[in-house]
Amino acid sequence: MLKRGLLIVISGPSGAGKGTICRELIQKTKDICLSISCTTRQPRFGEQHGVNYYFVSKRDFEEMITNNQLLEYAKVYDNYYGTPIGYVEEKLNTGKDVVLEIDIQGALQIKKKYPKGVLIFVVPPTLSLLKQRLSDRGTDSEESINNRLNCVCQEMTNTTRYDYLVVNDKLGNAVSQVEAIIMAEKCRPSRFDIKKFLES
Amino acid sequence: MLKRGLLIVISGPSGAGKGTICRELIQKTKDICLSISCTTRQPRFGEQHGVNYYFVSKRDFEEMITNNQLLEYAKVYDNYYGTPIGYVEEKLNTGKDVVLEIDIQGALQIKKKYPKGVLIFVVPPTLSLLKQRLSDRGTDSEESINNRLNCVCQEMTNTTRYDYLVVNDKLGNAVSQVEAIIMAEKCRPSRFDIKKFLES
Repeated sequence: MLKRGLLIVISGPSGAGKGTICRELIQKTKDICLSISCTTRQPRFGEQHGVNYYFVSKRDFEEMITNNQLLEYAKVYDNYYGTPIGYVEEKLNTGKDVVLEIDIQGALQIKKKYPKGVLIFVVPPTLSLLKQRLSDRGTDSEESINNRLNCVCQEMTNTTRYDYLVVNDKLGNAVSQVEAIIMAEKCRPSRFDIKKFLES
Repeated sequence: MLKRGLLIVISGPSGAGKGTICRELIQKTKDICLSISCTTRQPRFGEQHGVNYYFVSKRDFEEMITNNQLLEYAKVYDNYYGTPIGYVEEKLNTGKDVVLEIDIQGALQIKKKYPKGVLIFVVPPTLSLLKQRLSDRGTDSEESINNRLNCVCQEMTNTTRYDYLVVNDKLGNAVSQVEAIIMAEKCRPSRFDIKKFLES
């Protein structure tokens, strides 16, 4: 019997290294795939439809909301962002694990719909290192960085609603921890077919 | 800050390979130790006090019960078997993980006292393989083996009360799964010091 894949939701502050962890995971394990979000914002230079995002019209997006075709969605400024159910369900049903990189609000929406979804919060080892990483990027002003750090501090109170918290101290360790979480979650008794075992 | 170790409880039918898994774990990882039970039964040939069991008098055992010094205990025929709290607490407080190999009743007693204890149930890949293993041992009559198998079938209904279920198909895989469970459980948000992080 083919077992359904796991839905793994990864959140964490910008600069914590979520994206790098996800890429490593997908490269290492052929049975994990990354969910692609859809958005109504314009593609940026180099972004491809079906690779970085599904770029859809506002009208199409709102139709997906109405038809309950989104696992979660949010409106940021004037643009919608969301996770289409179709792709996720298709992969889970073929036994693939699906990783979603998503913010806290989206993660908690997903946990309501998919209680078996596994929520992982990634944090940097220290706040000062996070500040350093954001400064090194050179894309944010000091004010914007301080705002981000304040948000991180507020967000941390929500981490208790996550199933796991991974400290991204060394990338290799963080990836091993996420892999261990996935392996452990596959050992949940609810995934074991007792009836089949008793007939074996 | 030194983090408290994990209490890991391993149960499963005789012949599932619990003991081998525990020995492998302890050999591979210096931060895991095996809890030693105490019993009122007589030592068998070669058994050493403080290695295989703590051999104690019935009076001493009953005093331990009265003084709440046992994590769990059971009376099997005319002998008591139990897990002394002292050793377990001492190891957990020095950050060591403690593994207990114990039956379902004991495991469920422990979960009540230590809700953070991690219960793992080990099963063989099939019932017929279990029967084969028990026959190969040559220590049980066919009737006794059939009785054991009936007990296993009844016990399986309790596995849903365990946190994890590991199928011991190949020893290496089963040990990796238990190691993954331990690594994952150490990523629980309740073990993360948010206050310290916010000051970092």
